[in-house]
Amino acid sequence: MFPFSLYLPTRIYAGRDCVEQLPDAVKNYGQNVLIAYGGGSVARSGLLDRVKNLLCGFNLIEFSGITPNPKLAAVRAGVKICRENKIDFIVSLGGSSALDCCKHIAAAVAYEGEPWDLVTDSAKIGECLPIFAVMTMAATGSEYDGYGVITREDTHEKLEIMSENLFPAAAFLDPCYTFSVPAFQTASGAADIISHVFEQYFVAKGNILTDGFCEAMLRTVVNCTPAAIREPDNYDARYQLMMASIFGCCGLLSMARTPSPWPCHAIEHEVSAWYDVTHGAGLAVIIPRWMRYSLNRDTARRFARYGYNVFSIEKTEDPYADAMKAIDATAEFFRQIGLPDRLSDLNSAITDEHFKEMALHIEKSWSDLKNSFVPIDEDGILTILKESL
Amino acid sequence: MFPFSLYLPTRIYAGRDCVEQLPDAVKNYGQNVLIAYGGGSVARSGLLDRVKNLLCGFNLIEFSGITPNPKLAAVRAGVKICRENKIDFIVSLGGSSALDCCKHIAAAVAYEGEPWDLVTDSAKIGECLPIFAVMTMAATGSEYDGYGVITREDTHEKLEIMSENLFPAAAFLDPCYTFSVPAFQTASGAADIISHVFEQYFVAKGNILTDGFCEAMLRTVVNCTPAAIREPDNYDARYQLMMASIFGCCGLLSMARTPSPWPCHAIEHEVSAWYDVTHGAGLAVIIPRWMRYSLNRDTARRFARYGYNVFSIEKTEDPYADAMKAIDATAEFFRQIGLPDRLSDLNSAITDEHFKEMALHIEKSWSDLKNSFVPIDEDGILTILKESL
Repeated sequence: MFPFSLYLPTRIYAGRDCVEQLPDAVKNYGQNVLIAYGGGSVARSGLLDRVKNLLCGFNLIEFSGITPNPKLAAVRAGVKICRENKIDFIVSLGGSSALDCCKHIAAAVAYEGEPWDLVTDSAKIGECLPIFAVMTMAATGSEYDGYGVITREDTHEKLEIMSENLFPAAAFLDPCYTFSVPAFQTASGAADIISHVFEQYFVAKGNILTDGFCEAMLRTVVNCTPAAIREPDNYDARYQLMMASIFGCCGLLSMARTPSPWPCHAIEHEVSAWYDVTHGAGLAVIIPRWMRYSLNRDTARRFARYGYNVFSIEKTEDPYADAMKAIDATAEFFRQIGLPDRLSDLNSAITDEHFKEMALHIEKSWSDLKNSFVPIDEDGILTILKESL
Repeated sequence: MFPFSLYLPTRIYAGRDCVEQLPDAVKNYGQNVLIAYGGGSVARSGLLDRVKNLLCGFNLIEFSGITPNPKLAAVRAGVKICRENKIDFIVSLGGSSALDCCKHIAAAVAYEGEPWDLVTDSAKIGECLPIFAVMTMAATGSEYDGYGVITREDTHEKLEIMSENLFPAAAFLDPCYTFSVPAFQTASGAADIISHVFEQYFVAKGNILTDGFCEAMLRTVVNCTPAAIREPDNYDARYQLMMASIFGCCGLLSMARTPSPWPCHAIEHEVSAWYDVTHGAGLAVIIPRWMRYSLNRDTARRFARYGYNVFSIEKTEDPYADAMKAIDATAEFFRQIGLPDRLSDLNSAITDEHFKEMALHIEKSWSDLKNSFVPIDEDGILTILKESL
């Protein structure tokens, strides 16, 4: 068993109307507030007005138009506004696209150089503006970790900024604000949560506690996602998805386990960087191919165990066959919640043209996939990408 | 599903030699250090010398002799030393007896009135001295929560001090320092962890995520405790028990579940306050009686589910019978790890003489046990205590 550290300084508020506690949470953080969000959905849902009313005693500056797969240009624009208005803290409204962009802004305001430097060298991240995250999506868990993902279009790079100073000061999880999330985004968020668990669960050595934590996360997603899609205002299903999502990347699931290089995320980030696909949907295509690539006589027992404990697959004498059933059940689950089965269904522009560049970029910019559950070299990445086409 | 908040500001360091990170963890907290511990075991194990060497650049003041079920007198003594030496922070070495005493000291140093006031009115707790907890036991999880339990001998009261300012700044979990914990204390710690989970798991309404988290905790304890007793230096078993213990009271297991008044803890605290028994051993006696008291046609399914998922009891058509098997398996588990089956085995002085006072004191000083999984009134408390005799 491996050493670990765990540090979760974000204060979580959860349940209906928890955003009412925002004024109390921010009261010692200053007067000048950046309210950041993406499109009009937070205005249509009434969340924007509600937050503006709750913070009516503060100087509020709005910053909108943050896109999915947020781009470096938005970071630059946000930094400029923060500096001009001497912003004290940021309130992010929305999903992790808004939040991750806010994280990069929060880190870059006090940094004189190019914001991208903070991605390539996290030692350059110093003090960050405090962030309060009012969530409207269950997906990345960025509300309970120190990571933010940002895309640099000129170089086709989608990479992470990372610092424990980037844990939000507080996060607000009101399931009602996820009722309006469309089915496709709900399903993509579910695939993202599943992938976070997989990246930590499928490793050489686990332990009873975190194996169980991981399986509880997976059962939650497998049970609640179809319900949330069928009945978008199913409070309990939405609530459970929001609860599960926050633990994806915070460190709880990887305690004392073999460290993982997160292979599916590495591969999907390359596809997103080139073709701007929805992260979770890209993962849903790649995951079953990665599973088949990684299935062998040594790994079969773990895939089979996952099948028994998450999909209630009946145990037979043949763990390899059971593992195959578990992989099929995973692919079938993604189909049932409406996610595409192939990258070309996700974006018809995707061909194998840039696959080689992607594979080389993973080796250069991500952790080494040779340390995956089953080692993956450049050829392996190409195999998984081609199978996913 | 219920609203909740979660706030876990303690930094956890875990694994062999993690205490080496203590100097880095404390470096911004001042120069005057109280090193607090109980008996000689931390000296014999070498931990005391190691910590003194690690902190050789600081002004170190030792405070020893903290007893199990720590008493108010020790708090007063510790407060006096802290004030005389202008202590900046406390390093607690040992299990939760040392740590809980340190928590009360940490809160009382800045309080001018009687330290017991802070137990009866937590609003009086202000700024607390920072605490760094180097653990040598897996049991209460005090290293990852804001609670401390203290006993007032003159009134036979064992109650909690509670503040989020009492979360340790950092906790160090090196399994090797638990190798020397005797079998009885190891088993008692295991019963304590199990009870923490039970108090939150057996409620009217749960959810998939925390049901799974709770069951993972229970499987860890049920699997690793016999191994840790059989082979005291079994690193993986000790490590898993230490990991599991920290989540007992931190809020993770109760997220969005029906709130619980922690009935077994209420009853055991009364017994400990009068007869100074080992907390976990007292719980191991009370738990099966509480389970039988709480088993009925409505609650059978949850007890049965626990049996299926923790003890792999085979599912039949009769959940009530399965629940009985689960309760029997629990009592048998406690017997197997060497815990006594009756309060009178734990301390021959225990009779029913004070049971009535205990029942009345629970109603006065604890939460209302009528809100338990199955409501417990004064007669119910007496029934459980008498069955436990």
